[in-house]
Amino acid sequence: MPDPTVPADVRDVIDSGRLAHLVTINADGSPHVTVVWAGMDEDEIVIGKLAEDQKVRNIRRDGRVAVSFEADGDHMGMQHYVVVEGTARVVAGGAPALLQTLAERYIGPGVQFPPMPEPPDGFTIRITPRRVRGMGPWNTPAG
Amino acid sequence: MPDPTVPADVRDVIDSGRLAHLVTINADGSPHVTVVWAGMDEDEIVIGKLAEDQKVRNIRRDGRVAVSFEADGDHMGMQHYVVVEGTARVVAGGAPALLQTLAERYIGPGVQFPPMPEPPDGFTIRITPRRVRGMGPWNTPAG
Repeated sequence: MPDPTVPADVRDVIDSGRLAHLVTINADGSPHVTVVWAGMDEDEIVIGKLAEDQKVRNIRRDGRVAVSFEADGDHMGMQHYVVVEGTARVVAGGAPALLQTLAERYIGPGVQFPPMPEPPDGFTIRITPRRVRGMGPWNTPAG
Repeated sequence: MPDPTVPADVRDVIDSGRLAHLVTINADGSPHVTVVWAGMDEDEIVIGKLAEDQKVRNIRRDGRVAVSFEADGDHMGMQHYVVVEGTARVVAGGAPALLQTLAERYIGPGVQFPPMPEPPDGFTIRITPRRVRGMGPWNTPAG
């Protein structure tokens, strides 16, 4: 198995406020995509959900996911990007605090999110990285 | 089946030079993501490939794909995006001309792409849209 540790430059992309394109697998084997906020928590990618939805149900059945992020820089005009393939699990609770942290990164400092007085605890999707792909310094032969 | 026609505002996003996050399904059922250039050709999404790669092999085995694009605007601070779910097929040839057209959109007018004198004919991935999802004017209740 490849080293599952996320390199520092990939971690920087994930924590930069770039949108995460999250892919889960539907019951019929087809792909399901949502675009969400994400960040790193220790060695896992974390995503907050206030309510159960299709991706939460998909992950409970099949934890195989991929997350892609656009990144700064380019290679011959083709913009850099990161793909993290991993295994996801759904943990009860934690969504409001995580979303508040991410909102300050994705919307701006001082914003209140979720925009409601008593949000539900929701769910936290935690993704253990298995492989990093894409195009950028994290995926070029050493040289 | 939903109307497979892509609404004009979604077509505009696809043809705007935003990157396409293309998901195909690996032989073991896990998701495979690459970030590519894309555009509309009549009612299909088209992607050019100079050489056969994992996504081409995946599509030949299982045509179920999803493509996501970030878009302008936001809903309560959450950026708009488009997901097109569809069925892909691989057609021989056509890659250099398509990539040249897309390069002028993604890199800039006057660029030569592919940057080589006699590129191979390659492949064109053609995606028939089946469903449009995401967050934006294309996915809000009428009203």
